[in-house]
Formats: sequence, C-alpha cells, structure tokens
Amino acid sequence: MKKVYLDNASTTPLLPEVREAMLPFLGEDFGNPSCLHDWGDTAREAMENARTEVAQLIGADAEEIIFTASGTESNNFAVKGLALAQQNEGKHVVVSAIEHFSVLHSAKTLEKWGFELSLVPVDRYGVIDPEDVRRSIRKDTVLVSIMHANNEVGTIEPIKEIAKVAKERGVVFHTDAVATAGTIPVDVRELGIDALSLAGNQFYGPKGVGALWVRKGVRILPFLDGGVQEGGRRAGTENIPAIVGLGKAAELARMHMKTRIEHLSRLRNRLLTELPNKIDHVVVTGHPQNRLPGHASFCVEFIEGEAMLMLLNSQGVAVTSGSACTSRALKASHVLIAMGLPHALAQGSLLFSFGLDNTSEDIDYVLEVLPPIVDRLRQMSPLYAKFTKTSKGGQ
Amino acid sequence: MKKVYLDNASTTPLLPEVREAMLPFLGEDFGNPSCLHDWGDTAREAMENARTEVAQLIGADAEEIIFTASGTESNNFAVKGLALAQQNEGKHVVVSAIEHFSVLHSAKTLEKWGFELSLVPVDRYGVIDPEDVRRSIRKDTVLVSIMHANNEVGTIEPIKEIAKVAKERGVVFHTDAVATAGTIPVDVRELGIDALSLAGNQFYGPKGVGALWVRKGVRILPFLDGGVQEGGRRAGTENIPAIVGLGKAAELARMHMKTRIEHLSRLRNRLLTELPNKIDHVVVTGHPQNRLPGHASFCVEFIEGEAMLMLLNSQGVAVTSGSACTSRALKASHVLIAMGLPHALAQGSLLFSFGLDNTSEDIDYVLEVLPPIVDRLRQMSPLYAKFTKTSKGGQ
Repeated sequence: MKKVYLDNASTTPLLPEVREAMLPFLGEDFGNPSCLHDWGDTAREAMENARTEVAQLIGADAEEIIFTASGTESNNFAVKGLALAQQNEGKHVVVSAIEHFSVLHSAKTLEKWGFELSLVPVDRYGVIDPEDVRRSIRKDTVLVSIMHANNEVGTIEPIKEIAKVAKERGVVFHTDAVATAGTIPVDVRELGIDALSLAGNQFYGPKGVGALWVRKGVRILPFLDGGVQEGGRRAGTENIPAIVGLGKAAELARMHMKTRIEHLSRLRNRLLTELPNKIDHVVVTGHPQNRLPGHASFCVEFIEGEAMLMLLNSQGVAVTSGSACTSRALKASHVLIAMGLPHALAQGSLLFSFGLDNTSEDIDYVLEVLPPIVDRLRQMSPLYAKFTKTSKGGQ
Repeated sequence: MKKVYLDNASTTPLLPEVREAMLPFLGEDFGNPSCLHDWGDTAREAMENARTEVAQLIGADAEEIIFTASGTESNNFAVKGLALAQQNEGKHVVVSAIEHFSVLHSAKTLEKWGFELSLVPVDRYGVIDPEDVRRSIRKDTVLVSIMHANNEVGTIEPIKEIAKVAKERGVVFHTDAVATAGTIPVDVRELGIDALSLAGNQFYGPKGVGALWVRKGVRILPFLDGGVQEGGRRAGTENIPAIVGLGKAAELARMHMKTRIEHLSRLRNRLLTELPNKIDHVVVTGHPQNRLPGHASFCVEFIEGEAMLMLLNSQGVAVTSGSACTSRALKASHVLIAMGLPHALAQGSLLFSFGLDNTSEDIDYVLEVLPPIVDRLRQMSPLYAKFTKTSKGGQ
C-alpha cells in the first residue's frame, strides 16, 4: 500500500544530513560539555557551533540562545520565567485565545500564582488584531505572548505590528515561533520582539530539543533549577546529539528556505483549491493567503475528524485533526472555537501538513481516497441525514 | 597518547546496543506518539515498551513512570510538583545539605514561593542520620527529598530507614536516584518510597532523557504545562529516540548489574587503596564501604582540583572535581563543606568514576602520571610551602 505522510506539523522526519551530524555524538564524542577535559571540550565546541547556527537562523546573537528540551519547555520557560522576573512591576499577562496549550496553560498556571490573564480574540481567519492587543494592555501588564503562526490553521500573525504595540507600552513581548522558525523567514530584530521559542522537530531536526531566544537585557527567571549550564539560565546536562542536530537543521533551513517554501506552497495551494471541488461542504480554515507554506487545513461538515483519520490511515495516509499535542484529548479544537466555528463543524477538522518529501502524486492519492471515505462516513451520520432531509424539504 | 576516561559520573558513553536500538527512531520511525496513524502507533508502542523496561529496573508499574528530559527535570518536577500539590496541608519541605543542585535549588525556589526549608546535616562520610530527618519533620512538612547516593563522594544513604521515618509521619518521600538507578539495585517497593528520579546518561543510556517515578495515588502537579502527553502529567512531544535508548539501557542494566558491580568495585577498591600510598596528604572522601561501585573520590591537600584536572587532561586522563553540573562554577563543593572539610582541602577534590570499559591498566596509568603532577603543583603552592616550613620548624 502507498504510504503518504502528511503530518509534518506533528513532527517532521530527520534529514539524513542532520542524522549524520548527530551520530558522532551518539558514539565516541559522548562527553558532557560542562567537563574540563578533552571529551568535554569536544562536546562544548559542537554545542557552541550549533548555538551560532540557531542564532543565525533567526538573526540573533549566539549568547542570547538558550537550549531547551522542546518547544513546550521553551514556552513554559518564557511565559513563566518572563512574568515571574517582572512581577514586582505588575501581575497581568496577555496571550491570544489560539495559543498552543504550552503557552495557554502556562498562563493559566500564572493565574493560580496570583497573576491576571487577558485573552485576545481572533477573527474568523484566526488573525489577531494589534488594536485588540493594545486594548488588552494595562498599567500592570508585564508580558504579552502571541504566537507567530498558528499550528492548527496555519495563519501567520502580524507579529511586527503586535510587537510594536507592546513596545510602545513598555511591555515584554514573547512569540511562540515553533511553527515558523526554520520554515519561513524569522528575524528577531526585524520583528522587534523580546523573546522567541522554537523546536527542532518542526524543521527536520531532532525531537527532544528546542531553544528559547531572549534579547540581551531582558530579565528572565530560570525554569529548571540546578547546575550552571546555559549561563545559569537552564540547568541539566545538555542533550548534545540533539543540540548538534538542531544546529545542522538550522543551517540547512537557512540555506534552502526559499526553495522549500516554493515547493511546499505549490502542494498546499493545489490541495486548498482542489479538495473543496472534490467534496461538498468543506470549509478551508485559517487565512486564505497569510498562512504557513506547507499547511492546508479544512473542516469537513457532518462528520468527525477522528473517524476520517482512522480511515485515511487504513489507506496509508497520515494526517491529523487539530494538533498532535491534543489529538488524544478528543475535544473540539480551542483554536477553531475561538475563530467562531460551530462546535459540530470544528469536530470535523483535518490538517494536511506537507514536507520536503511530498509530491504532487501524494495529492492525487489524497484526492482519490478521501472523497469515498467522506461519503461512507456521511452515510452513517445522523447530522448529514437531518441536513439532506431539510434541504430536500426546502426544494 | 593514552586516553583514559574516568568521568562516568559526569556522563557515561552510549552502549552500542543502546545506539542500535535508537537508530530506527532517528530514521524511518520518526512519528509523534500522540498521532492517530501508523507512524504514531510505531512510536507509541516503542515508548510503552521502554516504559515497561524502566519500570522493571526499579520494581515499579509502567503507568507510574513519567518520561522527562533529564535527571534535573525529574528533580525539579518532583520537588516543586509534589510540594505544590500539597501546599494546602503545609508549606515546609526537608532536604539534605548534600543534595544535587537540581533538588537544592528547586527547594530554594519553593522558599521564594512561601515555603519553609529545613536542611538535614551529614556526618564526615556524607551519611544522613534518619533521626536527623525525624527531628526536621514538622506538622506542616509536606515533602522530604533525600538522595539515594551522593554523586560527588559516592556515599549511599540509608534510604529505606529515612523513608520509614517519613512514612511514620505521613510525609511524601522523594529520592534522587540519578546516581544509583541502573547502577546498583533499586526497588521502590522495597525502599518504601513515594517518588524517584533517574537519568539515562548515568547508566550507558542517552542524554536528554530521564524519568520520574511517582507511586500511584501520590498527588503531583505538572511541571511542564501544555498538551496531554504522559497522561497529562508532562507536556511536550516525547523524545522517542532517547526514550527508546533509556529503555534499552534499563534492560541491559538489569541483566548485567551483578557483573558490572563486581567489575567496577574491583577498580574502585584498588584506586581507593593505592592512591593514598602513592601520594602524601590525600584524603578519601565519602563512606569507606557504603559507596557507589565505580566511584573513588579524594581530596589532595595544598592544591586546587582545577589545576590537577588540566594537567591530568594533558596526559589524556579525564576526571572531574566536584560535580559536572558545577565544575564551571569554580566554587568549593557544597557537599564537602557540609561534610565538615576545611575550605582549602575541599578545593583539592578529585573524582575518578569508572565505567564498563575501564581496566586495571587505566589505574596503573593514573598511579603513574598523577604523583608527578601533584609534586609539580605543590612546588608552586604557597600553602604547601607554608606547611613544609611549619613542619620542619616543628621537627
């Protein structure tokens, strides 16, 4: 059976070059970079090279990069660490309603710790209006955290404009760039932001590694207490093989970004155009233009995303409904609900996320196998039966 | 030049079998275990097998194991998560004075959050008296965290007796077993404890992965907020290659523990006996008998550990002074100070930690190269000059 992986938003595979770069550090070069001997030196040098590569990817200085174990850790670190470092100046934080749960739930933890939280709404395309951010900022606001692009619907946010609003009010601004860093151009100086999260497994680097960039001069409390690794900002023996892989992935992303974006956009545009022509009652979710290059998301009316995933999988096609981190929670996506989609429609969400290996034939295959799956599920759907009855009655 | 790695306490190398087990997950089997498709299923199955292996290593049930990214994360999670989960019953925690900084600094963070902290002292061998723990426990104590063995001086603590004291007082008991799990027998039921931290890179598994065991029924708050991974207890895409490696390392540790301990103890005993015969004014640190099998620690009078490390490294020998996580802090070890060693003596600490690949020839080499290094450094040492003058004066 044909196997088509269209779930790169959940995780990308490792590029062979990334794996090759990692292998020595899973072998002879196994040292701990904190150690004062040759094994330690080799590890430390590799780590600092990776730090430079990650910095270059986002237009930052190497010493501003803190390695973490995941995008989730970066977001926890940023939201909690930045807010706690400034709590003497106020205890109010602003995040959007469509943040990844690692930001949203970190903000809710801050609420338990005595902070107040404002959620900024989004429009039907998932776009955040900088003026809404402005209205949410109060005298005691110490942190605004708004994602660069949404991982479920692909919408790219006007981060530069939002960061400007935060800056005008003197509020620290963090962006979760897990969906964008390594995928589209990200320049922290150009964006005018204070902190940024990224994750290796979103751009053909390894799992188990992420980074937090914090602009020089911005105060942050450590999230992981312990040893003095990462300049005393993040304790724990560094995951050198993964850090080296992240560095290599960053280098490759920077070198090949333009051709990657062209390739992915072509595939995405084709699916966004053709799927609604093949299946009735399909809604494209997210912004029609300002969206991630490899990201095509839909809601299919009258059926559940879950069931479509299962049947697509039985045909060899891997996709997701909502986000990977919540797929086992079996709830309607908070992102789609915040965008104003009805609950029943939100249940039928499908996300196709393309990767470097995908081809136009993969789309042919999806367009061949998905319509009969939808037909089959709709025949069993009480909602669809009700709908067809009503529309016939109305004819 | 001969190269001799004697710093396994900082990190062990990967066993080839562990690397082999990991490789498919750095290749084809790259899926995210949260995903509802074949790639996700493969990853999830491998993760659950690893969970079973880790559980078997410590006599636990698989569903009690939470994967983390390091021993440091496990300790932060345990200390903060267990204390915060019970803060309605009291805000007092007890830890020993010689805990790893990931426990000690986590406890100090709790202090900032309104908890009170008691430090239990140790004797000159680094041993904690269960009666001292009993005296530290108050009505509002909600957590006791005492390490299973100290990473700097190798002393194994009477955890079963300490856990019994905590249990009698109805206080949750956590142990940092990063230095022991996978190295010596650890059985959580036999020890009668509530929570335990371990780390992969301490027993020939990968960096970037650890585990926290929490006994069923014990409440803990999540440390990393976000998705619903690890039963909602620890968010973030799981580091599958590293988790698989940890599982394999756990399996191998369980199978070969007895022969490993015999091999390491032989090397350790030889160095503990012979080094003080080769060099004057050398003190063995830690307990003479109840210590980690591969762990030989000393203080060399009148000189700094740092300088010895450098010169040993120039002869191809890798060792550490204090712990890897603090070697760049250049401070005298808090462990040695708590054991009552004078500050100047504590500065001269040296830790040789043996691994599976070491041989008796490695010890021959150390016994050959170290004495001239010590002589050379002492000739430059003002402290030593003062000492020899005084002793001559006394003759």
